[in-house]
Amino acid sequence: MLKASIVGVTGYTGLELLRLLLAHPQVEIAYLTSRQHKNDPVGNVYPHLAGYDLAISNTDLETVAKDSDVVFLCLPHKTSQETVASLYGKTKIIDLSADFRLDDVKTYERYYGLPHDYPDILKKAVYGAPEWNKDKIAKADLVANPGCFALLSQILIYPFAGNIESVDIFAITGSSGAGKSPAEGTHHPVRNHNIKSYNINKHRHIPEIIRTAQITEDQLNFVPSSGPFTRGIFAQAFITPKAELKTCAGDVYANAPFVRLQEEVALANIVGSNFVDLSYQKGQDGRIIAQGALDNIVKGAGGCAVQNMNIMFGLDETLGLKTLSPLYP
Amino acid sequence: MLKASIVGVTGYTGLELLRLLLAHPQVEIAYLTSRQHKNDPVGNVYPHLAGYDLAISNTDLETVAKDSDVVFLCLPHKTSQETVASLYGKTKIIDLSADFRLDDVKTYERYYGLPHDYPDILKKAVYGAPEWNKDKIAKADLVANPGCFALLSQILIYPFAGNIESVDIFAITGSSGAGKSPAEGTHHPVRNHNIKSYNINKHRHIPEIIRTAQITEDQLNFVPSSGPFTRGIFAQAFITPKAELKTCAGDVYANAPFVRLQEEVALANIVGSNFVDLSYQKGQDGRIIAQGALDNIVKGAGGCAVQNMNIMFGLDETLGLKTLSPLYP
Amino acid sequence: MLKASIVGVTGYTGLELLRLLLAHPQVEIAYLTSRQHKNDPVGNVYPHLAGYDLAISNTDLETVAKDSDVVFLCLPHKTSQETVASLYGKTKIIDLSADFRLDDVKTYERYYGLPHDYPDILKKAVYGAPEWNKDKIAKADLVANPGCFALLSQILIYPFAGNIESVDIFAITGSSGAGKSPAEGTHHPVRNHNIKSYNINKHRHIPEIIRTAQITEDQLNFVPSSGPFTRGIFAQAFITPKAELKTCAGDVYANAPFVRLQEEVALANIVGSNFVDLSYQKGQDGRIIAQGALDNIVKGAGGCAVQNMNIMFGLDETLGLKTLSPLYP
Amino acid sequence: MLKASIVGVTGYTGLELLRLLLAHPQVEIAYLTSRQHKNDPVGNVYPHLAGYDLAISNTDLETVAKDSDVVFLCLPHKTSQETVASLYGKTKIIDLSADFRLDDVKTYERYYGLPHDYPDILKKAVYGAPEWNKDKIAKADLVANPGCFALLSQILIYPFAGNIESVDIFAITGSSGAGKSPAEGTHHPVRNHNIKSYNINKHRHIPEIIRTAQITEDQLNFVPSSGPFTRGIFAQAFITPKAELKTCAGDVYANAPFVRLQEEVALANIVGSNFVDLSYQKGQDGRIIAQGALDNIVKGAGGCAVQNMNIMFGLDETLGLKTLSPLYP
Repeated sequence: MLKASIVGVTGYTGLELLRLLLAHPQVEIAYLTSRQHKNDPVGNVYPHLAGYDLAISNTDLETVAKDSDVVFLCLPHKTSQETVASLYGKTKIIDLSADFRLDDVKTYERYYGLPHDYPDILKKAVYGAPEWNKDKIAKADLVANPGCFALLSQILIYPFAGNIESVDIFAITGSSGAGKSPAEGTHHPVRNHNIKSYNINKHRHIPEIIRTAQITEDQLNFVPSSGPFTRGIFAQAFITPKAELKTCAGDVYANAPFVRLQEEVALANIVGSNFVDLSYQKGQDGRIIAQGALDNIVKGAGGCAVQNMNIMFGLDETLGLKTLSPLYP
Repeated sequence: MLKASIVGVTGYTGLELLRLLLAHPQVEIAYLTSRQHKNDPVGNVYPHLAGYDLAISNTDLETVAKDSDVVFLCLPHKTSQETVASLYGKTKIIDLSADFRLDDVKTYERYYGLPHDYPDILKKAVYGAPEWNKDKIAKADLVANPGCFALLSQILIYPFAGNIESVDIFAITGSSGAGKSPAEGTHHPVRNHNIKSYNINKHRHIPEIIRTAQITEDQLNFVPSSGPFTRGIFAQAFITPKAELKTCAGDVYANAPFVRLQEEVALANIVGSNFVDLSYQKGQDGRIIAQGALDNIVKGAGGCAVQNMNIMFGLDETLGLKTLSPLYP
Repeated sequence: MLKASIVGVTGYTGLELLRLLLAHPQVEIAYLTSRQHKNDPVGNVYPHLAGYDLAISNTDLETVAKDSDVVFLCLPHKTSQETVASLYGKTKIIDLSADFRLDDVKTYERYYGLPHDYPDILKKAVYGAPEWNKDKIAKADLVANPGCFALLSQILIYPFAGNIESVDIFAITGSSGAGKSPAEGTHHPVRNHNIKSYNINKHRHIPEIIRTAQITEDQLNFVPSSGPFTRGIFAQAFITPKAELKTCAGDVYANAPFVRLQEEVALANIVGSNFVDLSYQKGQDGRIIAQGALDNIVKGAGGCAVQNMNIMFGLDETLGLKTLSPLYP
Repeated sequence: MLKASIVGVTGYTGLELLRLLLAHPQVEIAYLTSRQHKNDPVGNVYPHLAGYDLAISNTDLETVAKDSDVVFLCLPHKTSQETVASLYGKTKIIDLSADFRLDDVKTYERYYGLPHDYPDILKKAVYGAPEWNKDKIAKADLVANPGCFALLSQILIYPFAGNIESVDIFAITGSSGAGKSPAEGTHHPVRNHNIKSYNINKHRHIPEIIRTAQITEDQLNFVPSSGPFTRGIFAQAFITPKAELKTCAGDVYANAPFVRLQEEVALANIVGSNFVDLSYQKGQDGRIIAQGALDNIVKGAGGCAVQNMNIMFGLDETLGLKTLSPLYP
């Protein structure tokens, strides 16, 4: 049994990770921590977790590291930098923030408006996309879990990496992506029947996407949007390849157990699960019409993190994840 | 043409009232006011109103009164008290707050936790339930528009008034009832598939209900609840009458143009309109199974206010309202 | 007062048209017809319309024509062909089917899989897009109301007409677009949290779009999709113009009272109204990122039809429509 | 490992049961059957199950029985009668239909309008409510899984059984309760913002409820309703007890691992899980205000069936179920 802890369990990402770890046959929860709580039974804080014999504590990082085989960090960026620095070398770390996703400090600073204080650790972090980084993840001490929009977009266009002239992506996310704090954009009366884009060509997930696609910022239009549903991201990409394709997605993802090539992608088919569904068809004017969907807080966050944990510890990559089939309907 | 102003236009009640007044053939908007705005075109503040040649100003009450035949107040309680006091006698007032709904100052103070500073004006206020108060409304200078839960509950049980041994009400409202400020209870990720009750037997609309039903607090169980939809309230009442019924709802509401007796009540049938749908059937154990529905921000707020305005100015009660049939689907 | 009839009132398009006509100050309903009904009070058939003194009859077309200044046809294609043929010359006709939208019989036959039996009448039909066809509509005896996806897409890209190298459109519609008959794609358990595309590059609205855009089929990728909401279409277009733009949308639509240029397009801003909201921004790689939204059964059907009626009868184009501001929230 | 089969896997109940069995550590799927399929890979029939190495076959019952330790029947009533008769004595059976829920043949015939052809087997069937029938379930060969409305209502009022003067229940279910076939009541455009009751005091789950509550039909008002969400039932009960209560629900359910007493019941807290949440408070006029919630296709169907299986085979009652915590948000 692996002893796993979640630092910063109180957001949607932390809670979802907890849901997944509770269903994992080789994991035992060591600590669930949060600054605001002091050994509060989890069911007192979150009534949906009543009946589970767990508490949320503000246990110090030292103790957490000592008693855990792996620590998941579900913290805001910047805070995560410091926490990783405290924990690095003492336990395996999977960081769900953005702090160690970008290998280039300048890009990080430009997109996040913050200095990166740990460039040395950054060099050692492995980007947690199991679809192409499995070997590195297997040996990593620190894995940076991808952003939700970023991972879907990357998986969708990765089969064309290096062969992309330009790509235009419209991606629409459920409200859980905005996190747990009430805000105007997630106020039910309006969100309930709304669609609206935001941060067009400015979203922080862009540098992750272009790195994998081997393109520059001026080859990508990225239109992140919010939709009237709770979970999931649906992405539409119009890809203009440079040359005739030589590989097909089926081959590229032959060893990716959570990537499914479907005739049609439907958001409802992946909710609650770690699957990413993809479809491709040849469009007009040389475009590839590519579509993809994942659950933003499973494959787009906690599920990918658990998949990375499995790989880091030599377990079957699908352990505890494939048993969670989509919640349908 | 009546010149109408809305003081405090920026909440959902004020905005809905504006929607209704824009569709009223005998109304011309004089002022839309709000403290935070200074002659801002309405479309700048609310993009859904782009294209309408109106502005939101912080015009003083004196000017508003002078240039308006009728002023609608969409203000928080307490603030409304003072505003009514400033305007009283200078123009006709329809107050959508709770401040002048209860004739008894002590009840007001107990439920709202505030003193009532204008008991004299309170005596002159008329409760704006056109279904039984039409004559008084016609002569009123100040009409207190009913609460949304309160009006539906009252219309539902009013045919039994004076003949009720006890009544148990479960009423479920859409998220627009919670107003425009984001809050935990209206955070989309959770509200989107939730039902939850609150303020059971403590809701501030209770004194309105019991007064009309001619019962005491201990004859009523009132369970207000929140549901995963935007507009409307659906109410289920189990009524235990004292004696055999002599009147039927059809007779009681023969002259109430917005009350419809339906075989089955369905929330979707009233959205966007000023209708209240009702159904009654005999249940087991001497109960009447009564159901009702209205749109909380139309008949439960702005629509009832416009209906009251029509009555106050001798217009056809349905003018500008019946032309707005339900938004279906 | 114009006497207006709706032939085929029982679908969502017919019902919505009725909602709009009930709110129109210069219209009086002559007949509401449907084969299945024989003078049934409208409230018996549709409880949401209880309280309106109207009936649905199977009155013959001859009588309908004789007693109506304008007849709206809300019929399936093919049936509409024949009905137009019966009525043509006897009254003004606004056809909401697809039968008279395409001037080219062969294109019609290819997309609809049916012969067109009335090519002579087809030549006289005017395409009912008030944004560029107002003068012709004003003189028309037969107006073919545009398709919902088609009208939004056209209005969105029309400012670039003749200057388009290629355009990729992802458009997502609410469930009311699928009509009133229950089907798998509109089954609530799944639709409620789903997004899925269909008829990619095969949708019947394509020929309307390319005609207006002055492009050929191989310059357009059109991805129609279904979303988890009831009303409205949101469209994302990536436009590749041939040359530097000379005109701006603001000029093009200076006289289009229902087209609004917004900083951001949000579906919630147009629900229930006849507005089309648009936004444009310069993207990467020479693309224009264009977004638009309309209510599929208002501006995308009944509202545009009423706007066309206003134009045909010399009324203010906005009469009875602008008074219906968006249902917000 | 238990070998389990699902006969009639293609409805929502069967699919949900499959989701739960896939997550059960001691279960191996033997057969998934349906008349319409002939060894079709499950992912071909249900794209959300792509990636699972299972097929749907029309394997005969004899073979299914021979190779299975337990067979779950997800069939329409009547069909289930005959299937149970074929399988009885050859394997353990858990029947999710209504056919073996009622011990009294006449009540069955009155509510279901059908003869019961196997009264002898009926006598041996055990009602699958683990909350009070655990010992009998442990020894049963045939368990009749309760109805979804029925189980929630029973668990809610069971602490008062034998002490109830009358009870009035308003219970509202998600659209998955209506099954997989599209119908008017589950057509998205209307269901999406609707609430409507049906079969008031006539619902087939009534006899299950009154048997457990030890009351007669004329002591119960049962108002089943449909709501605008996919999963879950929320029930409001107004209970009039005969005498002062001696037991509290906490004691009654001390050994019921899926029953949670909460301060407030919220539908969102149980979705996707096998929990039933309950709350009780003293109301006016001698009433108890009781509320409860469960997921209609988990605890209200497949989850309760798996719990029964666990008990029948001497496993921990919570095995494979408690690891599935609620999907939140």
